Amino acid sequence: MSTIADVAARAGVSKATASRALSGRGYVSEDTRTRVEDAARDLSYVAHSSATSLATGRTQTIGIVMPPVDRWFFAELLAGIQESLLALDYDLSLYGVPEGSQTRERLFETVLPGRRFDGIIAVGIQPSARELERLQRTGRPLVSVGPYGEGSSAVSIDDAAAARIATEHLIELGHTDIAFVGGSTDATELSFGDAMRLDGYRGALQAAGLADHARVAGAAPTMPGGYAAAAGLLGDRRNRPTAIVGVCDEAAIGAIIAARRLGIAVPTELSVVGIDDHEHADMFALTTIGQSPREQGHEAVRLLTHRMDDPDAPLEHVAAASALVVRNSTAPPR
Amino acid sequence: MSTIADVAARAGVSKATASRALSGRGYVSEDTRTRVEDAARDLSYVAHSSATSLATGRTQTIGIVMPPVDRWFFAELLAGIQESLLALDYDLSLYGVPEGSQTRERLFETVLPGRRFDGIIAVGIQPSARELERLQRTGRPLVSVGPYGEGSSAVSIDDAAAARIATEHLIELGHTDIAFVGGSTDATELSFGDAMRLDGYRGALQAAGLADHARVAGAAPTMPGGYAAAAGLLGDRRNRPTAIVGVCDEAAIGAIIAARRLGIAVPTELSVVGIDDHEHADMFALTTIGQSPREQGHEAVRLLTHRMDDPDAPLEHVAAASALVVRNSTAPPR
Repeated sequence: MSTIADVAARAGVSKATASRALSGRGYVSEDTRTRVEDAARDLSYVAHSSATSLATGRTQTIGIVMPPVDRWFFAELLAGIQESLLALDYDLSLYGVPEGSQTRERLFETVLPGRRFDGIIAVGIQPSARELERLQRTGRPLVSVGPYGEGSSAVSIDDAAAARIATEHLIELGHTDIAFVGGSTDATELSFGDAMRLDGYRGALQAAGLADHARVAGAAPTMPGGYAAAAGLLGDRRNRPTAIVGVCDEAAIGAIIAARRLGIAVPTELSVVGIDDHEHADMFALTTIGQSPREQGHEAVRLLTHRMDDPDAPLEHVAAASALVVRNSTAPPR
Repeated sequence: MSTIADVAARAGVSKATASRALSGRGYVSEDTRTRVEDAARDLSYVAHSSATSLATGRTQTIGIVMPPVDRWFFAELLAGIQESLLALDYDLSLYGVPEGSQTRERLFETVLPGRRFDGIIAVGIQPSARELERLQRTGRPLVSVGPYGEGSSAVSIDDAAAARIATEHLIELGHTDIAFVGGSTDATELSFGDAMRLDGYRGALQAAGLADHARVAGAAPTMPGGYAAAAGLLGDRRNRPTAIVGVCDEAAIGAIIAARRLGIAVPTELSVVGIDDHEHADMFALTTIGQSPREQGHEAVRLLTHRMDDPDAPLEHVAAASALVVRNSTAPPR
């Protein structure tokens, strides 16, 4: 079997350079990387990570704790994390387990503390379950993605600001009867991020002297959730809002579909704004607050490598970019 | 630090029973499991999988090769695989890499051959890239999910049969002008499974003497893809099909949304049928061929454990269940 020395000799570079080129760790020029990769292919060279692991005590594995990857945000985020980790030659050990489940409890009690990782990325953690604290106790470098990142490095958009900007956009167009779809009047049912979005909506109304006009239609943050909640809101012809803020694009798209079914024209009779810039937003001409979960995945890996290089460095909190994307689902009220 | 013996003593069971209760491998009663888990929690006992691995030569890790988890099918399938693996105390190492990418090439050339896994599950593999053959050469137990499973144990629905049944449902209602949305006239652009669905559609038309009526609108197997293709098909009032078979529910739902936008009533003026029973199918009252990717995930893990227990056992090919689910998107033509 070929060794890294064989590859280096064939490519005409040092062993250290060949190793850097194949591992993706440390700089090499594109030209050199190509030459080394060609040599490795010609010689059927295979790096043995388990041998590396025994020698260095590192596992080259990052643990990812997240809810099941059944929504656009998590899928895009996971794709971003995967891209960055593959480029660094790290493996990704996935624990996609629903919040509040027995499996989740077992994960935090016995599974994760027994695993060897070089680092952990925790996504969408709810503060109530003290899960971040328990991950911190494992002593491994830790980064969280999402609005709750107490005591860890973290990356997230400012959820309250996103909902505030979405609501202000409607207020500036002249709307005063603006409903929020996808919240709940029972705070215990909301995820931490969705609760912050609801706060942002209420804050914008209050600042405009419209606090009394707040209307929250409880709904799961999904297309069917938004559809059902909006159908309820829009069914009563005489008491209909002129605009809707969706807790996320999926809920907002559900609201647009409900409006179309009821024969209510968007945006002339109803304005709808979302948060995400979901892959389907363009198809529905949805005005929204854009964010890139894929870039947040890259950023999470970057923060994690910082922690792994220097566990004592100060914690970093990165506010991911988000901005109003105006399409054709919002207009002044009639 | 507590040992398994301490846990067993506190729970009043043998070490072997305590080990079975905590690992999830082998039978213990619910009552015993609860007692052992309570004891483990009281003693802050943590199983050390890396020590287990050194002792047994097993990694307790399964590698999963799939496209990025950005569609319902892959998300549900991954959730099913994750559920089964967690119950067996196996870790899941995810390689979610787009087909045809350079990263994918590197994955098969250098990354996967260098990793130690107890087994591999390969999802949606395309025969053209000979990826299954390359995975077989790693010598690890292997199961594939999807219509192409040559030389491996495999689980999949019968894609051709699913599309045939969907098309026959429309023919039985009296339709003769039935278009297929989500295919391509260029076979190289189709995934293996989508090509089989297109074959099933053509086969049903042929059997009914309608081969000349075949109309295929090329489209990505997504909601925007189905929307755009259907908008093209339906725009020409005098040459409009009376029914559409979507290559998957996402394409079929896109077609329904396009019809609604054009003022074409579903099902009175246009029948639409999909394949999947996607989480949004119910919201659109979509008639479809249902399948459960989550159960296929469970099945894949079951097949893989068979291979790991006995690498020389005959290969197993499991045809996952699929059946017509009639909702309200199909009716006789006017």
